[in-house]
Amino acid sequence: MGYKGSSQKFLELSGISIGDIIKITKNNVSYQGILLDRAEDPDDKHIVLKLDSGYNIGIDVVGALAELVTKGDKPNLELPPLDMGKDVDKPDISIVSTGGTVASVVDYKTGAVHPAFTADDLIRANPELLVHANINGEAILNILSENMKPEYWAKTARSVADEINNGADGIVVAHGTDTMHYTSAALNFMLDTPVPVVVTGAQRSSDRPSSDAFMNLISSVVAAKSDIAEVTLCMHAEEDDSYCLLHRGTKVRKMHTTRRDTFRSINTLPIAKIEKGKLKLVDKNSNYKKRSNENVQLHDDLEEKVALIKSYPGIEADIIDYHIDKGYKGIVLEGTGLGHCPENLLPSLERAKDSDIPVVMTSQCLYGLVNMNVYSTGRKIVSAGVISVFDMIPETTYVKLVWALGQTENIEEVKKIMQTNIAGEIGEKSSEKYFLN
Amino acid sequence: MGYKGSSQKFLELSGISIGDIIKITKNNVSYQGILLDRAEDPDDKHIVLKLDSGYNIGIDVVGALAELVTKGDKPNLELPPLDMGKDVDKPDISIVSTGGTVASVVDYKTGAVHPAFTADDLIRANPELLVHANINGEAILNILSENMKPEYWAKTARSVADEINNGADGIVVAHGTDTMHYTSAALNFMLDTPVPVVVTGAQRSSDRPSSDAFMNLISSVVAAKSDIAEVTLCMHAEEDDSYCLLHRGTKVRKMHTTRRDTFRSINTLPIAKIEKGKLKLVDKNSNYKKRSNENVQLHDDLEEKVALIKSYPGIEADIIDYHIDKGYKGIVLEGTGLGHCPENLLPSLERAKDSDIPVVMTSQCLYGLVNMNVYSTGRKIVSAGVISVFDMIPETTYVKLVWALGQTENIEEVKKIMQTNIAGEIGEKSSEKYFLN
Repeated sequence: MGYKGSSQKFLELSGISIGDIIKITKNNVSYQGILLDRAEDPDDKHIVLKLDSGYNIGIDVVGALAELVTKGDKPNLELPPLDMGKDVDKPDISIVSTGGTVASVVDYKTGAVHPAFTADDLIRANPELLVHANINGEAILNILSENMKPEYWAKTARSVADEINNGADGIVVAHGTDTMHYTSAALNFMLDTPVPVVVTGAQRSSDRPSSDAFMNLISSVVAAKSDIAEVTLCMHAEEDDSYCLLHRGTKVRKMHTTRRDTFRSINTLPIAKIEKGKLKLVDKNSNYKKRSNENVQLHDDLEEKVALIKSYPGIEADIIDYHIDKGYKGIVLEGTGLGHCPENLLPSLERAKDSDIPVVMTSQCLYGLVNMNVYSTGRKIVSAGVISVFDMIPETTYVKLVWALGQTENIEEVKKIMQTNIAGEIGEKSSEKYFLN
Repeated sequence: MGYKGSSQKFLELSGISIGDIIKITKNNVSYQGILLDRAEDPDDKHIVLKLDSGYNIGIDVVGALAELVTKGDKPNLELPPLDMGKDVDKPDISIVSTGGTVASVVDYKTGAVHPAFTADDLIRANPELLVHANINGEAILNILSENMKPEYWAKTARSVADEINNGADGIVVAHGTDTMHYTSAALNFMLDTPVPVVVTGAQRSSDRPSSDAFMNLISSVVAAKSDIAEVTLCMHAEEDDSYCLLHRGTKVRKMHTTRRDTFRSINTLPIAKIEKGKLKLVDKNSNYKKRSNENVQLHDDLEEKVALIKSYPGIEADIIDYHIDKGYKGIVLEGTGLGHCPENLLPSLERAKDSDIPVVMTSQCLYGLVNMNVYSTGRKIVSAGVISVFDMIPETTYVKLVWALGQTENIEEVKKIMQTNIAGEIGEKSSEKYFLN
C-alpha cells in the first residue's frame, strides 16, 4: 500500500497525504477529489482520486499540478466494535467469506477499498444485515475468485458444514464473481445440507455508487432464512436494483463481463425472486429440497487431475493424449452443437477409454440438450466411450467429474454418477423453452 | 446403406423392401409408415419408419411383427434435370455447398435423406429458389461441420472468390451449423468482398416437417441479392417460421443445441431481418459495407498452429507450456469474468511472451467487454504480455489469430491486427445493452 517513486515525490512536494481533498490540473483540465491509497502493486507514476461522482480515476503525475483543497482526516480502518448481542427471535445466519468484490469494505474516510479480512468488517459495512438475522461472520479465504481451485472448494464446504453443525440456520458464502458458479456447483455436490446455503458476490465494489454488493448480501440473508435447503446463487436480476434472483447452484453461469444481472439460470428457471426483503417462488410448483433437522452430510473428497477442454475447428488429438500421459483421471470436452468434436480425436478418445479415463461430452452452445445419437459423428463418439450428460452445462460437468472421481475409482460408477441427477444439475427434457431467459 | 443382419432377415421374411408402406406391431402398439433406407453405420437390429406425421422412428425388430400395406416405388435418386436457362432480369447467385444438414436432399419416394453431392441437388430440392435468382451451384466439400478446419476455410474462401470473379452477384455458403460461426468469421477475414456472402445452414434436415432448411436458404438468397457486401450468417430468428435474421459473421454464435433460432448476435444487433422475401435493416443507421464493382480481395494464408484454451479453476500452467513446446504460434485464452486466469499461469504466459507467441485474452462470459485494467490479476496478466481484444467473442478471436499469424510473422503487427476492427468483430464500447437479445 502507499505511493512510491515519482508519485510519492510529487505528493510530498505538494504537502499532500492520503485522505486529503486535492485539485489536480493537467492539460488544462482540473479534477477535484479525495486522494486514495493505492491498491497493491502500484506503479510509481499514477495517483488515484475519488471524484464527487463516486468514481475513481488514475492520473499520471508527469506534467500535472497538485493543489491541496482541504486536509483530510487520517485513514481509520479501526471501526468501533458492533453490539453483536444475540436476538433470540431472529435466525442465526453465518456469512462465510472467501474474498472477492463483495467481501471488500470501504474506508469511508479515504474512500479506499480494502479486502474484508474478517466477516465482521462485512457487517460493519452493511449493518442493516442485523435487522434480518443474528449474523456470525467468518473469513476463511481472502482470494480473488479467478484463483479458486478444488482444494479451496473443499475448504469452503468444510467451513459451511462446521457452521451448520454449530447451529447456523442458514449460510451465506461471499465469493468473487468470476468463478462463483463453479463454486456453487461444487458446494452442491459436496454438501447435503438441511439449511439454505446461498453463494453471492458483487459486480461493483462497495465504493461505487452503483454497487450491487449490499442488495445482493441482504437478499442472500433473506434466502438463507428461507425454506430452500439447497446450495443456491443469489445475484441481481436486472441492471437496476429492482430485485434479486435465486438460481439453482448447478444450473447457473456468469454470462456478461460487467453487467450486474450477469448470472443467468441455464436450461431452467430460477427458483425464487427476492424483492424488498421478501422471497417468492418463480414457479409455485417447482421442486426444491426443504429445510429439515437432519445433519449436514459432507462429501469433500475431490480428484484434482481433471481437465476441461474446449473443442474448436483444427484442434489436434495430441491434446487428449497429453492429458492421458500426464496422469489426468478424467476429461470434460466442451464440444460443438449436439455434442460433437472433430473425428480426428476419435483414436485418442478410444485410448482414454482403454486407460479407464472417463471423457464426458458437453456443448459450447451452453443452452440445450447434448444428444450424440442424431448424427454419425455423435454415434462414433459414443462408441469411443464418451459419456453424455444431457443438459448439464460444461462448468458444472467439470466440477461434477472432479467430485465424482473423488467419490469412487470405479469407472462404471463414475459414469452412473455423471448421468444421474444429484443436485438439480440435470434437468427436464423440455428445457428448450428456457433459452436466454 | 441398406439393412444387414437380423433387421435384413426380418424384412426379407416379410417380403418388405425399402420404400414400402408397412405396419409394425410391437408390445401391442402399431406403427404405419414408409420403410426408409438406413443412414450410414446401421446396426443390425433397428429399422426406420417414416410416419405420416413426417417424423422418423427407429424400431428394434426383436419381438416385432411386420405387415406389408402397399408395395412402394423403387427409390429414385435420378431426378430429371431442371431447366436452368438464365433469366437476364434476375441476379446470378452462387450456392457454394460445404455439407451439413442444409445441404441434404430428400428422396421423396423413400423419405431418406442423402447428402447433396452437387448444389444442383439443392436446387432440385428447393426449386422455388429460382424465383429469386439464377442459381449456380457448386459443392466444394461434403463434410459435417464438426470436421471443419482452417484448411477447409481457405478452400471455401477461394471457391467464393472464384464465383465472384466469375460474375456472381452474391454468394450463399451452405454449411453445417456446429461450427458455422467459426467459418463465417474466417471468411470475413479472408475475403474483402464487393458482393454479399451469406453463410447458412439448417437445424432440421429437410425430411422433417419442421425443417428450417428451405426458409434459411431462400432468405439467404434474398440477402445475397441485397446491398450488404459483407460475410453474414442467415438463420431463423424465432422457433417458428416468422422470419430470418442476418447476423454479422464475426459477432454471432450458436447458443442452443437444438433450437432453430440458435444463432445469436453477441454484443451487437443483427444487421437485417428477412421476412417473406423482403430484407429490412434492424437499425436504419447501422453501418455496413455496400455492394461495389471492385475486385474481390483474397487473403487466405492461415497459421494452423493456434490453440484455444478455456481457463477453469484448477487449470495447470503446464498446458500453456505444452503448447509452447509443441511449436504453437499463438494461443487464445478463454478466461473468466473481465479476462482473468489463475495467477499460477503467469510464469508460463511470460514464457510465451519471451518465445514471441502471442497470447490473446477473451472471456467465457461471452457477453461484454474484456478489461484487464480493473483488478490486480488482470494487470498482472497484461504485464505478462497478454493481449486484450475488447468485446470480440472467443471463437472469432481464435479464427482471427489463425488468420493474423498467416498475414505476418511480426508479433507487434499481429498484436495491432488483433486489436484493430477489421470486419465488425470489435464493436462499440456501449455493447452492454446487447445482452441475451
